[in-house]
Amino acid sequence: MNDIFLKVLRGEEAPYTPVWIMRQAGRYLREYRQVRESVDFLTLCKTPELAAKVTFQPVDILGVDAAILFSDILIPVEAMGMKLAFSEKHGPSLAEPIRTRALLERLSVPVPEDDLPFVLETVKILKSGLKVPLIGFSGAPFTLATYMIEGGGSKNFLSTKRIMYQNHGLFGGLMTKITDTVTAYLRAQIKAGADAVQLFDTWAGVLSPDDYRAYALPYVKQIIKELKDDGAPIIYFVNGCAGLLKEIKASGAGAIGIDWRIDMGDAVKKLGKKFVVQGNLDPCALLLPPEGLRPKVREILEKAGPARGHIFNLGHGILPEIPVENAKALVDIVHELSGKAAGRPE
Amino acid sequence: MNDIFLKVLRGEEAPYTPVWIMRQAGRYLREYRQVRESVDFLTLCKTPELAAKVTFQPVDILGVDAAILFSDILIPVEAMGMKLAFSEKHGPSLAEPIRTRALLERLSVPVPEDDLPFVLETVKILKSGLKVPLIGFSGAPFTLATYMIEGGGSKNFLSTKRIMYQNHGLFGGLMTKITDTVTAYLRAQIKAGADAVQLFDTWAGVLSPDDYRAYALPYVKQIIKELKDDGAPIIYFVNGCAGLLKEIKASGAGAIGIDWRIDMGDAVKKLGKKFVVQGNLDPCALLLPPEGLRPKVREILEKAGPARGHIFNLGHGILPEIPVENAKALVDIVHELSGKAAGRPE
Repeated sequence: MNDIFLKVLRGEEAPYTPVWIMRQAGRYLREYRQVRESVDFLTLCKTPELAAKVTFQPVDILGVDAAILFSDILIPVEAMGMKLAFSEKHGPSLAEPIRTRALLERLSVPVPEDDLPFVLETVKILKSGLKVPLIGFSGAPFTLATYMIEGGGSKNFLSTKRIMYQNHGLFGGLMTKITDTVTAYLRAQIKAGADAVQLFDTWAGVLSPDDYRAYALPYVKQIIKELKDDGAPIIYFVNGCAGLLKEIKASGAGAIGIDWRIDMGDAVKKLGKKFVVQGNLDPCALLLPPEGLRPKVREILEKAGPARGHIFNLGHGILPEIPVENAKALVDIVHELSGKAAGRPE
Repeated sequence: MNDIFLKVLRGEEAPYTPVWIMRQAGRYLREYRQVRESVDFLTLCKTPELAAKVTFQPVDILGVDAAILFSDILIPVEAMGMKLAFSEKHGPSLAEPIRTRALLERLSVPVPEDDLPFVLETVKILKSGLKVPLIGFSGAPFTLATYMIEGGGSKNFLSTKRIMYQNHGLFGGLMTKITDTVTAYLRAQIKAGADAVQLFDTWAGVLSPDDYRAYALPYVKQIIKELKDDGAPIIYFVNGCAGLLKEIKASGAGAIGIDWRIDMGDAVKKLGKKFVVQGNLDPCALLLPPEGLRPKVREILEKAGPARGHIFNLGHGILPEIPVENAKALVDIVHELSGKAAGRPE
């Protein structure tokens, strides 16, 4: 078992910087596309053998130091009672967006063992086969709320902010239900075997720092506090974190995901030494061949400091257009430059 | 003539904080929609009497302290030789995106007096009627390059970054042509009467700080340096500036636009005292009625410091869905809280 990833999360000495890639089980892999030829995305998420299969793929193909459960952040939202659909062109959509108290009342807080058994089954299959740690995950409350209020993706998040600003009762009620859902969902993943969990706050970066502090952070804090004794380290990732790091420091998470639109040195300086950082290569930098990629990786490694406090990753999910050789090269370069090739003990 | 806006840009004492609103001539105004009933967007941009008419509207209706030329950042791109179209649904599109040397060669650097006379004519009409300063503007080179390479808007800017990373000759050649175009275009606007100019770098915030420094900033610096002696203050706005302020400081601009995803106090601290700052209210905060808006405005005013160094604005353009009463209330609240109502001398 390669547990370098967990060592870093626990603040222990590590022989090299571990690396994994957000959305590493995805369309840039021929093997993933082959699986998707026979099943649609939602069916893949809900079929434990297949979800486990695509979770294993990047571990075998790229040699990353951690696996992340294959699923979608809207899976627990569907279990809350919303009708979910995916289209290749327009992404996810949720029917009857939650903009009234009556619609909110209809939502339930799912019991993962009963309502999301396929996720826990996937975790169990993975744990029996993986040679690297398994990361469980969930969307963070604000991010899930945007999908639930907008009914899908959004450009300006106007409906979300309208309710957030004008209807505190509805917004708070929704965030509370989501928070309870996420807490139970992550707890169940940990109980089933997830070694660490990541909270994805993909859209919290569209909030001003004041609004983030008022409307998003409290719910994240609550989840992290609730999970304190469940035994799995928590990584909190806000996409577009540059203006929010002072607030994010207060989340309670020991590890913070850093997107690419901030200098890693600045991020480390703002957070202080007690945090593990994860990131922060521009996903598009994987368009570069190894000789162009290497100096960018070196710079991030140097700015993040010693292997001990850094998990290498992209600043957001890998894109379908990325050549798999470049993703492989990334993993090798991170390992080499951070010490693995230098023969340090594993 | 109310020249408070220019006073602040020149670093002079000001009796209150001036305010204008990005995209203040726009669809949230009934009077603007009425004009658009009879002409399409591009025709409106190219008809001086009408472009001037909608530029005047927000000055009369809201009481803002500056007017901004009604136009579109892609107008000079069309004059460079690309076919431009707008659709209500998908926004702008440019035919034959610039991804080869042959397509780049076909682009010219327009002579504003010959190729964009309608813009200069609009400026002249405005100058003869406005009681507030007139802001001219252009898109900044990286932002214009993204449209020219992608052929329109983009989610991940993959084509732009591919060329930026892999084809330095093509990227540099394109950026140089754009830079020459923007320089001549802004110079002509100033000569025609614009009192200040703003460079809009709407998409530079999708670059990592290192890439911004390498691929976007040098061209902005060159434009600002070229225009040093043309006599109009320059405001440089990067949307998503939170991680880039150290770099933006080196642009040469005396005034920096700040979007809403960073605390104004942090921005001022990072920039230091010699810069004028402009911003930074979340455009969606205009969903709030006056009593909800007031504390948000107060907070920004306090964090930005004295009227002397701050031009109030949104952190991005006003949205079509905003009630006009709320925009009016914003202008009044800024004026009141920053000293106009307190009877300070004008």
